[in-house]
Amino acid sequence: MKPERLRALLEGVGRGEISVTEASRTLSKLPYQDIGVATVDHHRALRQGCPEVVYGEGKTSDQLLRIASALLDAGQNVLVTRADGDKAAALCAAHASARHAPLARTVSVELTPPPLRPCAPVAVMCAGSSDIPVAEEALETLRALGLSSRRIVDVGVAGLHRLLGRSEELLECSCIIVIAGMEGALPSVVGGLVRCPVIAVPTSVGYGAAFGGLAALLGMLNSCAAGVTVVNIDNGFGAAMAAHRMLPSVEVP
Amino acid sequence: MKPERLRALLEGVGRGEISVTEASRTLSKLPYQDIGVATVDHHRALRQGCPEVVYGEGKTSDQLLRIASALLDAGQNVLVTRADGDKAAALCAAHASARHAPLARTVSVELTPPPLRPCAPVAVMCAGSSDIPVAEEALETLRALGLSSRRIVDVGVAGLHRLLGRSEELLECSCIIVIAGMEGALPSVVGGLVRCPVIAVPTSVGYGAAFGGLAALLGMLNSCAAGVTVVNIDNGFGAAMAAHRMLPSVEVP
Amino acid sequence: MKPERLRALLEGVGRGEISVTEASRTLSKLPYQDIGVATVDHHRALRQGCPEVVYGEGKTSDQLLRIASALLDAGQNVLVTRADGDKAAALCAAHASARHAPLARTVSVELTPPPLRPCAPVAVMCAGSSDIPVAEEALETLRALGLSSRRIVDVGVAGLHRLLGRSEELLECSCIIVIAGMEGALPSVVGGLVRCPVIAVPTSVGYGAAFGGLAALLGMLNSCAAGVTVVNIDNGFGAAMAAHRMLPSVEVP
Amino acid sequence: MKPERLRALLEGVGRGEISVTEASRTLSKLPYQDIGVATVDHHRALRQGCPEVVYGEGKTSDQLLRIASALLDAGQNVLVTRADGDKAAALCAAHASARHAPLARTVSVELTPPPLRPCAPVAVMCAGSSDIPVAEEALETLRALGLSSRRIVDVGVAGLHRLLGRSEELLECSCIIVIAGMEGALPSVVGGLVRCPVIAVPTSVGYGAAFGGLAALLGMLNSCAAGVTVVNIDNGFGAAMAAHRMLPSVEVP
Amino acid sequence: MKPERLRALLEGVGRGEISVTEASRTLSKLPYQDIGVATVDHHRALRQGCPEVVYGEGKTSDQLLRIASALLDAGQNVLVTRADGDKAAALCAAHASARHAPLARTVSVELTPPPLRPCAPVAVMCAGSSDIPVAEEALETLRALGLSSRRIVDVGVAGLHRLLGRSEELLECSCIIVIAGMEGALPSVVGGLVRCPVIAVPTSVGYGAAFGGLAALLGMLNSCAAGVTVVNIDNGFGAAMAAHRMLPSVEVP
Amino acid sequence: MKPERLRALLEGVGRGEISVTEASRTLSKLPYQDIGVATVDHHRALRQGCPEVVYGEGKTSDQLLRIASALLDAGQNVLVTRADGDKAAALCAAHASARHAPLARTVSVELTPPPLRPCAPVAVMCAGSSDIPVAEEALETLRALGLSSRRIVDVGVAGLHRLLGRSEELLECSCIIVIAGMEGALPSVVGGLVRCPVIAVPTSVGYGAAFGGLAALLGMLNSCAAGVTVVNIDNGFGAAMAAHRMLPSVEVP
Amino acid sequence: MKPERLRALLEGVGRGEISVTEASRTLSKLPYQDIGVATVDHHRALRQGCPEVVYGEGKTSDQLLRIASALLDAGQNVLVTRADGDKAAALCAAHASARHAPLARTVSVELTPPPLRPCAPVAVMCAGSSDIPVAEEALETLRALGLSSRRIVDVGVAGLHRLLGRSEELLECSCIIVIAGMEGALPSVVGGLVRCPVIAVPTSVGYGAAFGGLAALLGMLNSCAAGVTVVNIDNGFGAAMAAHRMLPSVEVP
Amino acid sequence: MKPERLRALLEGVGRGEISVTEASRTLSKLPYQDIGVATVDHHRALRQGCPEVVYGEGKTSDQLLRIASALLDAGQNVLVTRADGDKAAALCAAHASARHAPLARTVSVELTPPPLRPCAPVAVMCAGSSDIPVAEEALETLRALGLSSRRIVDVGVAGLHRLLGRSEELLECSCIIVIAGMEGALPSVVGGLVRCPVIAVPTSVGYGAAFGGLAALLGMLNSCAAGVTVVNIDNGFGAAMAAHRMLPSVEVP
Repeated sequence: MKPERLRALLEGVGRGEISVTEASRTLSKLPYQDIGVATVDHHRALRQGCPEVVYGEGKTSDQLLRIASALLDAGQNVLVTRADGDKAAALCAAHASARHAPLARTVSVELTPPPLRPCAPVAVMCAGSSDIPVAEEALETLRALGLSSRRIVDVGVAGLHRLLGRSEELLECSCIIVIAGMEGALPSVVGGLVRCPVIAVPTSVGYGAAFGGLAALLGMLNSCAAGVTVVNIDNGFGAAMAAHRMLPSVEVP
Repeated sequence: MKPERLRALLEGVGRGEISVTEASRTLSKLPYQDIGVATVDHHRALRQGCPEVVYGEGKTSDQLLRIASALLDAGQNVLVTRADGDKAAALCAAHASARHAPLARTVSVELTPPPLRPCAPVAVMCAGSSDIPVAEEALETLRALGLSSRRIVDVGVAGLHRLLGRSEELLECSCIIVIAGMEGALPSVVGGLVRCPVIAVPTSVGYGAAFGGLAALLGMLNSCAAGVTVVNIDNGFGAAMAAHRMLPSVEVP
Repeated sequence: MKPERLRALLEGVGRGEISVTEASRTLSKLPYQDIGVATVDHHRALRQGCPEVVYGEGKTSDQLLRIASALLDAGQNVLVTRADGDKAAALCAAHASARHAPLARTVSVELTPPPLRPCAPVAVMCAGSSDIPVAEEALETLRALGLSSRRIVDVGVAGLHRLLGRSEELLECSCIIVIAGMEGALPSVVGGLVRCPVIAVPTSVGYGAAFGGLAALLGMLNSCAAGVTVVNIDNGFGAAMAAHRMLPSVEVP
Repeated sequence: MKPERLRALLEGVGRGEISVTEASRTLSKLPYQDIGVATVDHHRALRQGCPEVVYGEGKTSDQLLRIASALLDAGQNVLVTRADGDKAAALCAAHASARHAPLARTVSVELTPPPLRPCAPVAVMCAGSSDIPVAEEALETLRALGLSSRRIVDVGVAGLHRLLGRSEELLECSCIIVIAGMEGALPSVVGGLVRCPVIAVPTSVGYGAAFGGLAALLGMLNSCAAGVTVVNIDNGFGAAMAAHRMLPSVEVP
Repeated sequence: MKPERLRALLEGVGRGEISVTEASRTLSKLPYQDIGVATVDHHRALRQGCPEVVYGEGKTSDQLLRIASALLDAGQNVLVTRADGDKAAALCAAHASARHAPLARTVSVELTPPPLRPCAPVAVMCAGSSDIPVAEEALETLRALGLSSRRIVDVGVAGLHRLLGRSEELLECSCIIVIAGMEGALPSVVGGLVRCPVIAVPTSVGYGAAFGGLAALLGMLNSCAAGVTVVNIDNGFGAAMAAHRMLPSVEVP
Repeated sequence: MKPERLRALLEGVGRGEISVTEASRTLSKLPYQDIGVATVDHHRALRQGCPEVVYGEGKTSDQLLRIASALLDAGQNVLVTRADGDKAAALCAAHASARHAPLARTVSVELTPPPLRPCAPVAVMCAGSSDIPVAEEALETLRALGLSSRRIVDVGVAGLHRLLGRSEELLECSCIIVIAGMEGALPSVVGGLVRCPVIAVPTSVGYGAAFGGLAALLGMLNSCAAGVTVVNIDNGFGAAMAAHRMLPSVEVP
Repeated sequence: MKPERLRALLEGVGRGEISVTEASRTLSKLPYQDIGVATVDHHRALRQGCPEVVYGEGKTSDQLLRIASALLDAGQNVLVTRADGDKAAALCAAHASARHAPLARTVSVELTPPPLRPCAPVAVMCAGSSDIPVAEEALETLRALGLSSRRIVDVGVAGLHRLLGRSEELLECSCIIVIAGMEGALPSVVGGLVRCPVIAVPTSVGYGAAFGGLAALLGMLNSCAAGVTVVNIDNGFGAAMAAHRMLPSVEVP
Repeated sequence: MKPERLRALLEGVGRGEISVTEASRTLSKLPYQDIGVATVDHHRALRQGCPEVVYGEGKTSDQLLRIASALLDAGQNVLVTRADGDKAAALCAAHASARHAPLARTVSVELTPPPLRPCAPVAVMCAGSSDIPVAEEALETLRALGLSSRRIVDVGVAGLHRLLGRSEELLECSCIIVIAGMEGALPSVVGGLVRCPVIAVPTSVGYGAAFGGLAALLGMLNSCAAGVTVVNIDNGFGAAMAAHRMLPSVEVP
């Protein structure tokens, strides 16, 4: 639509139907999206079958239903994160094909399955059962982005044998999302074992001096394994989106 | 220049010398500044005789000299903040008309004196001698912006009589910049005495639990006097710029 | 009333009915409000139709009812902030003309509509649906202060096109209240686009390292756009009051 | 009892009934309280009719009932602080003379009324209705300690006239407990008006950057009024105990 | 002087030489100090021989010399705190009777020795040699205020025998200033041994998790000994001023 | 099993049934646990009758039941910590021999009683009733580890006589776990009285500036008693495990 | 070497020269590096011409010289970071081919130039001149890793036109390293413009409430642009290493 | 001496030379040390040849010389920690047998070599060259306490092979002191490999979000390896003293 509108304007000038003064004024007021960058990016997103992601926290079930419908009507897949029981129920009731992942607290509605991306799987690792919801949020987001994944739970730095027993698997992955609470040491150890990107996700798991994930966050930012990067506390979604940025898209012929 | 370029482009289309496709492509690449907002704003700044302000910290004397010359060549007044002795000396040596305010740590070079703004003076208050450098930075910035000011020092909340003795003066000002370290209580008291804008500047003055200005900053953000606003610690320049935003410009016929 | 009492006292001395000693003693005990500053300010407030604002948090419905009645009896409009469901219900039940804004959590009771202030509207911007309650508190307070406003939601720094699409509107406002959680970057971008005052309100929206609004607060205090000022986290009311201080009053003939 | 036991031991040695070796060994094992300091202090407390104070938080109703009974059986008055509804109800049900102060969250049971202390009253000041529970805790504790008090509420630094209107009263007090949340500026202003001890109590009242009382706490610790001292956040009881330490005891003939 | 001026004004009204309108206007502008509180307090201070205290940090030698001369000319004793070597030397060079306490970093110049106050000595305790400068600042301030003192150093909670060996002395004091760095536990132990006021001064002594005195500050604010009060980190002067507020003045016949 | 597998591999090479290349490849993939350290350690744990400890927080009753069954089937004693009412009930319903300690929030199921360790008891001290749950968690863990203990509650630094009255007992212990909230001073005093290891456990008991145990934690880390070590806030289990590391095992003939 | 040693051992077993028991024991003691992961990774590093990176801070010139020589003797390129003037001078004196980048504070010594990596350039952006040293450290590290780069300085969020004027360039890069101090908002804006990985580096540039980079760090962790990742404050090296992990290696035929 | 004094007193009572009243009074004043605990402990220390440790920071060379002489005259070995160049030089000049360890910043003067303690060595591990001063302080303290040690440097969690290559050594130690800056993850990994006590020492090594050791400290307190204990940041001395408490003394026949 927008490039057409720009074209129409210019053609009007070409035909002498629109004065230069008027066109100049119109152009200076055109919203930026009409001219370029963002629009192009938007189109690319559509071609890849990426979902629009809606952050469910702080929105009512009603708001979520309206947003989801609007997106689906526009032909987009939808992923809702941080959707608790009631919101998830409302979305599932409204959309027969909705997929609710209770641990991940996500609901996805897909018009077309996301085309599988041309790369090795993304590993999603965590140490304990309390970190699993964050891991599941990452896994669900990866799925919606067309990225295959490998789930590696119950490996921690205090039990190196279990971790080392999985090192072959890690070497085969394109990217590793390492989720850890408490002291947040796992990304340092993993970062020393592999060459691929390591995305560290601190969790709010722990008590006392864990200070809601601060200890793990600081630990990861100070990782002695060079090149480890960090996202916000409990941000499984953000980690998956970071992987999405790093990995190749489906080519469109 | 830039509106002309846009105009020329459109005229080229009008005359059929530039194809619609080509113009469309050129326009989508044009830097934003060519079309509008920022440029206009830039012109307005020039008409008001506002200086360009250069933050001196972390720049070498050499860098400052080059930046100042470039701006002066372009016909703009220059204000350099956080300019310590050596940098100030270099600027003064290079520009005969440079005005160095050692307490404020500023150097200004003015091609034309800033036209005086049509409003009552801005009060700049502080409690103790240690806060004076921040007050002076605010005062020098106000001067460069064409805003008259009133300097009120040595008034603190533990000596109400001195503060109340100045209340008449405060009521005559257009805006009050209140600078305080330690517990940062002065803006709350002043905010209760006047109706005009109160801009609070915490300073790093104090020791122990002052934590480098954190105590004053938190105190000011939690002021019980409604409508007090706050800028960064020791940011006398920013407070003056906030006053600049609030007060009327010189009208250009 | 109070100036009269002072006058009467002095006249009594003039007539010899009150001894100098007695008058001297009375004067030294007179509450400060009897002599000046605060009283005058109070009268000005009344003439402008400004409401008295009552902070509802930590007060019972009963206390709020009594305070509201006392103020209304004294001929003042009333605005209650942070009034949750029960308190709002009680106020609405007691006063037929009460206006309850549930999102804003405010209740206002107006005896006379606030006279409209002679200035351009105040923009109230925020990025996401979670920031809306803070925006609504600001909007309701502006309304009660006689300030017109413009509501601009769903603009964020990660989607510049939407923000730039509203820049014309921003340039027409007298003052901009920018509300943002998470990284609090919006005021910096807006501050670079406009010349008018920008009042930044951090919100507690976000999770993990948002630390209840601390990240947004620090971001705003360190804004690279000069002259942006900041109020407390989630303080929509305070932002509106800051705008009130900056903008012209209704002139009383 | 204990001095008697020491005396008996020494008399036994004197009579040759206890060998030096045995006495030496016994003495090295005697609990410290048997010899001195603490015991004497304990006796003094009893003579003054001071209550034993029990911190109710984290104890069950049952535990509180047992502790209270034990103390009352030993002839001591009892004051329970931080006693919420259920605990207070249990104590009142068990002791007909129990006095429950719901705002203060205290229950006191007095066998004999505390003798009035020979000093001017202690002022307990606070700014807003949200600080009143802390003020009431201080007032109830003062009452139990035999200290008369003066309650001064609704005075804040943003409304100096109300504060100054009470300054006469303040000058007549022996000690002033100043309770404030938000920016915690009141103790600085009061400390500048009076010569007597000023005990500052930060409260957790406020929101956002009040950080649960941290802002008020830091403000008070950095007070520009020399000689102001501070107790823990919300610690009305501790402030009253500090006053108790500063003021004279009832002399025992 | 000021009461006379008020009196003269009123007498002028009484004699009809000053109109009521004019007097009313003059009175509303009179600085607060002319009417009451502060002036009286100022006079009382003079009668007690209290020094004016000047905070030396952030002032130049020159500024200090000028302030000291002005105060001495007005007949007041002077105490300068935080006066390092150069500043102290300048003051000593200018005033033959200056008393420099290098450890305390104070200089006092006394026109008349402060009259001794009618109370038991104030104990000043600290644990280690690193805390001594803070203790000395407190001791010098007490001396200037006419308060006798007892210096008790090298007692710490990890060596209870030394502390208990001094407990007799502590019981004889009117007030105890307890200075401690590291974990700041000494005030809790002392507070349990004595009934008199305990003023706790955290110091910045320690390393690592001492965080510049934060650990000691928090420890003291959370003291389990009821009624202990706290001043700012390293604030020996403030502790002495707190003692000054608590203890009786010299009666003036 | 694992050493056997290694042996079999090597024997295969020895017999020429497995080629060197193949064995080399197999070995480079063998999980670490197959070769050594961890396995041996695991065996030692079993011989000592140590329980496997399961952290109950963030796990469902169902998960806990499955984990417990798996461990018991493998012949191991089980200790579940942080098991609230519902989880504890589920475990007790499933295992007749389960031992639920409600204050400690632990459930243990023992197939064989842990053999008693050859050392003096471990003291578990705390000051107030609010610290008792942490103490009980430590005591239950010690019991499960075969370590005898001595429970010393209601001793605090503000009441030295009670503490000193228990010093004989402390001298007889092999290790002392000192649990304290508020200012966390008790480990410093105890550390000065005994030579044995002192393990300090800060608790989240307290309010205001206790900041959820931060004050106690910092106090303990800065203890002036040399050689005191610290574990996480409220970590009674961790303290017992630290004692377990320090004390001798049951020898296996 | 190591694979050979393993092979030799196995061949010894195959030939019967080494008993199974002996081989089993040797293998269980072999350092991990002999068997696998790390060694292989080490070889890959060598083939790519990657330098070994030495962190210069806290090492003496002498230590750096010895480490560099050892690495160069082993045939590896060397990059020393955080090498101030003296250390850089020593390294340059010792190695004629040393390349010193004073702004970046790096010294590199290359035996063979790093083969250029098969990918688009990495953009390194920053807002102000104070951030340039961090940008230069990133640029030098990229160079040593064989990654081409694009340097984009002096673009900030308060001057959108300059940023948008570079957006074409950004779209052509494989990865963007965004360096910012103060409020750290740049990565959010950039993250909204591009699809590729955005690595955010907070800097310690700023003053007051910048708190040494904390404000920028928190801002970046809370970025509203999904998938932005963060490294430690001032860690230009780490950001380049993160890019290295994300981008393809040189294929070895 | 003291037991003799007690004995003499009791004998005096026994002989009737001292009245019971007088003895009772004397006893209630006796410093605690005269009776028991501390004295006995002091004697035990002497028999073990333990040094008295003097913290050098904040003391002058002169003070250190005097303290050291007093202790040596009393027959005790002396260890001075945190002794920088000048202080170390002064001590070495005064005592020919002084042993200065520059990296550790310690000076020890031994009259008799400390008898070797009957236990396996204590491992002192650290990751990088910047942590070595803390390790050396621990090693020197261990030496002075008669504890043998094993120095393991340059092992970090990002290079597991080097760590695992030392695991045999670790299993032979009686106690492991693990020193780490940055993310402080090493104690978690080591704690999972060994059964013996692990004493974690965070260091202030690192930059940015290391926040002077806070990141490492929090990481260690939240270690997922159960039973790891922590001492203050950079406290190598304290870690050695903790080991001293855990390990057996030299038996005295």
